[in-house]
Amino acid sequence: MTKFDEATQATRVDEHTYDVCLDPGYTVAGALNGGYLMATVLRAVTDASPHAHPVSTSAHFLRTPKPGPARVRLEQMKTGRTAAVTRATLVQDGTAYLDTLATTATLREDADPDWAAPPGAVLPPVEECLPLPDPGPEFAMTLHERIDLRFDPPTLGWSRGAPSGRVEMRAHFRLREEIDPDPHLIALAVDVLPPAVFSIGSFGWAPTVELSWHLRALPAPGWLTLICGGRLVSDGWFDEEVEVWDEAGRLIAQSRQLARVGRG
Amino acid sequence: MTKFDEATQATRVDEHTYDVCLDPGYTVAGALNGGYLMATVLRAVTDASPHAHPVSTSAHFLRTPKPGPARVRLEQMKTGRTAAVTRATLVQDGTAYLDTLATTATLREDADPDWAAPPGAVLPPVEECLPLPDPGPEFAMTLHERIDLRFDPPTLGWSRGAPSGRVEMRAHFRLREEIDPDPHLIALAVDVLPPAVFSIGSFGWAPTVELSWHLRALPAPGWLTLICGGRLVSDGWFDEEVEVWDEAGRLIAQSRQLARVGRG
Repeated sequence: MTKFDEATQATRVDEHTYDVCLDPGYTVAGALNGGYLMATVLRAVTDASPHAHPVSTSAHFLRTPKPGPARVRLEQMKTGRTAAVTRATLVQDGTAYLDTLATTATLREDADPDWAAPPGAVLPPVEECLPLPDPGPEFAMTLHERIDLRFDPPTLGWSRGAPSGRVEMRAHFRLREEIDPDPHLIALAVDVLPPAVFSIGSFGWAPTVELSWHLRALPAPGWLTLICGGRLVSDGWFDEEVEVWDEAGRLIAQSRQLARVGRG
Repeated sequence: MTKFDEATQATRVDEHTYDVCLDPGYTVAGALNGGYLMATVLRAVTDASPHAHPVSTSAHFLRTPKPGPARVRLEQMKTGRTAAVTRATLVQDGTAYLDTLATTATLREDADPDWAAPPGAVLPPVEECLPLPDPGPEFAMTLHERIDLRFDPPTLGWSRGAPSGRVEMRAHFRLREEIDPDPHLIALAVDVLPPAVFSIGSFGWAPTVELSWHLRALPAPGWLTLICGGRLVSDGWFDEEVEVWDEAGRLIAQSRQLARVGRG
């Protein structure tokens, strides 16, 4: 079992309840990463579903849970031949921290697209991309030790005082431990980039309010490529869209999140 | 009260329960339109919330309800100063038909964007766009009598045997009755276009599995402009993104849905 599998493990208590233990190794600014939380909740969802893959997940982030024991409460809303729908709530000390609706289905390994749009951007190869500078202990970003991100250089300009001026972020991504990407890692991938508003010089803690993502295909081994952009920053809110592509050049996932602009 | 307000009306029974009456005037192929259902559910959500606007709605479509009486069951998950989160389920005869999580907040009328991307497409003016041909009674599309859609001509090519070959659909939109757009009409707007896969010649009933949308600003009076595209059609699934712009040139809403490719 990989460290990521262990950190996101969900143990069945009964058909409506799974125990999890939130791992302190997935924090950013001291708060557990939302993608990590979704991956953990989805372990319970897929275990309890007759279908293998979380094809559509909608997550509303209520509060920031602490590392340590928590529970996932499940409510099966529909169990169909093609798809099942589960409501899954992450609960700690009796309080809901993350509420999700998830549709599971079983994707074919060898599906050939009937129609596909090209990627919105092409990144330079991994060796020409730049790692995130070590944020230092004051950022309480334990996640940094677990992930390997290599940024398309213009989208890392903000880290050296030269933000690109557009809401964007692009990077190759893998875990530092050697594992093949699976759907649960994709849940982390769609929320693993720094906030795309950093690229317009808007820094600070930018909490996700809602994140929906769709798993469109099963990823090939190797690096994932994350292409992130946004459309509007207004009234304290911004959106962020991430596309996840694999080394075989296939679109693996699409996400959009609505978040609050940071104030720190 | 407008006909649309009446059709989406939700009457409070108690703090967790609203009565609604699903109007037979909003069907496509005999099934109630998903946007209409979301608008109805959100009437209950916003009525019960301390905040005025449904800023983020995630809807998983479980089953196809029938016109007639139904209930919206609410569960308040969080009530914060900036935002509240409500789980709202549309129930008919004891069965859940649509399950949603909705974040409400209060948007400012006069918010100026801090940063905005331009529209992904520019449509010809309304008078140079084309109405949807009358589908005829065999399509059981009562919705057609209530809405006024004027299509960007290439994206209506499918209706005359010349699909554009790209997953796309663009139109100006308003109701036939004279009302100023409000957030509940936007819920209809994000699901009111024909399936964008019609433009690649993939016809038939294309049921929505999940639809998430974000309200980004309050719409100005007048026509709305809907710009819809998709990224991937594969393994029986396709995605559809809609942007809603108003006559003042502002991005009002963003949606993405995951749907099944039609089979008939």
